[in-house]
Amino acid sequence: MLVHRLNMRVAVAVDVGGTHLRVGLVNESGQIVRKEKKEVGANRRPKDFFQRMAGLIRETAGEKIKEIAGIGLGLPGICNFKEGVVHQLPHFPEWRDVPAARLLAEDFSCPIVFDNDANMAAVGEYWKGSAKGLNNFMMLTLGTGIGGGIFLDGKIWRGDEGFAGEVGHMTIEADGRSCACGSRGCWETYAASQAVPKGTTAETLAKAADGGDSKALAFWREYGIYLGIGIGNLAKITGVENYCLGGSIAKAHPHFMESCREEIKKRTYPRLAQKVKVLPSALGEDGNLLGAASSVFHEVSASL
Amino acid sequence: MLVHRLNMRVAVAVDVGGTHLRVGLVNESGQIVRKEKKEVGANRRPKDFFQRMAGLIRETAGEKIKEIAGIGLGLPGICNFKEGVVHQLPHFPEWRDVPAARLLAEDFSCPIVFDNDANMAAVGEYWKGSAKGLNNFMMLTLGTGIGGGIFLDGKIWRGDEGFAGEVGHMTIEADGRSCACGSRGCWETYAASQAVPKGTTAETLAKAADGGDSKALAFWREYGIYLGIGIGNLAKITGVENYCLGGSIAKAHPHFMESCREEIKKRTYPRLAQKVKVLPSALGEDGNLLGAASSVFHEVSASL
Repeated sequence: MLVHRLNMRVAVAVDVGGTHLRVGLVNESGQIVRKEKKEVGANRRPKDFFQRMAGLIRETAGEKIKEIAGIGLGLPGICNFKEGVVHQLPHFPEWRDVPAARLLAEDFSCPIVFDNDANMAAVGEYWKGSAKGLNNFMMLTLGTGIGGGIFLDGKIWRGDEGFAGEVGHMTIEADGRSCACGSRGCWETYAASQAVPKGTTAETLAKAADGGDSKALAFWREYGIYLGIGIGNLAKITGVENYCLGGSIAKAHPHFMESCREEIKKRTYPRLAQKVKVLPSALGEDGNLLGAASSVFHEVSASL
Repeated sequence: MLVHRLNMRVAVAVDVGGTHLRVGLVNESGQIVRKEKKEVGANRRPKDFFQRMAGLIRETAGEKIKEIAGIGLGLPGICNFKEGVVHQLPHFPEWRDVPAARLLAEDFSCPIVFDNDANMAAVGEYWKGSAKGLNNFMMLTLGTGIGGGIFLDGKIWRGDEGFAGEVGHMTIEADGRSCACGSRGCWETYAASQAVPKGTTAETLAKAADGGDSKALAFWREYGIYLGIGIGNLAKITGVENYCLGGSIAKAHPHFMESCREEIKKRTYPRLAQKVKVLPSALGEDGNLLGAASSVFHEVSASL
């Protein structure tokens, strides 16, 4: 057993968020052996940022750095998987067409697998979480926006050029709220933390709802309705039945799951509605790290 | 050459519409050798309907009936491809879970391939129309409603149980127009013939627009905006770039294509928007027949 453990391959998983950079050392059975977290900080210029990332990777991997199977890197933006380029990163407005994989490759000689964070989370849930054994499902990451990782026939579906999954920007109100993307009525302006009234936060509202506050409960009920409208759309379009909810807001699911499921039933024909399942993530924040590691071990994300 | 032609396989293609039943005899090179059309009529009870269908098939096939490769049957409803069952058919409200393939098999011993009409149209356009060579595209049939045939990786995408493609019922106005399906704000209440004001028809409005009538032109401009909202959603979700428009309303495309394309650009991030193409069907009504025949010859539709 010990010999086996010593021989077990390890991968470095990197998860870039809006405020934190997290790095994990993950073995082939899906255990996160070591984990480090750092604030992203104010200087987000790509070159400096990737240097700091390289430092944190070395720190986390320690003596294992020479034998890692690869680095899996997840970023919360519009990523070109094929070319390893980040086109746009909402939290990093100065990033435009940043060659992320190449910048990281300057510091490491191992294989680098690169993808957006919703796809990484999907791969993680498929490997070790709520979506185990589901060959078709969608990962929805509920945070500032809504990211989508679409899993079809046992692998990430990318569309023609790798841009599939921008579900947060589907229009659900033709003349609705204006969105940072330039459009109106995008799903994520109603069903992500953007929908939280000014002066409070999703976390505060979740705690208030835990304590039975009626205003907070009403907020989450309405949140669930909008979440259900979008999930209903996804189900009707793609015929995919399973939806896994991740991201910071998913933790509040006890307060919005019922209204979400009711809304899906209202808006979807019965044959499909009775099959649609909405499942909270089993892995939480670790999903992205496990997905990034799985992508290294299994190359799930490596086929466009 | 003559010998080859005599040996060429033929299939019977059946297209069931809201008002007409059409049957074609199609050869392997995609030529419709013979074509018959009959009104559906008032008696739409499944057993009687399928008997009349069998009669029209025999009439159309003539002496070829003994050597046909199979019958391809397209129906405009929610179909269970696996079991050959039509769950719901909007124009035939008395139909519930009709075992269409089995009813037809009572009269014919050849293979029977069965699918909804939007999928058949997609297969037709892929074989001989606007979607030739496109391994990913969506067929949108614009009629009373909007049907969707989703083609991914060179075959029809069906979702978990075969119900994918109900794109007409995606919500684009959360509190919008009520839809026959029981939901509100469905795309097809804005971007199909349902959106035509009472007292006129899509055909009349198309002719008026041809003649430069400003009210008619304004109708089609708005129609294009709503069409674009939905196509933008499909592109952002699936990353599929090519959309083929069929159905009776597609003929009016010169009047709505510009506003449709503009709306897609407005609502979609530039990297994707510049790639999205909206293509009118090349086959028109014959698309469904060619798709049904292709499904027999190539079994494109035969793998769930």
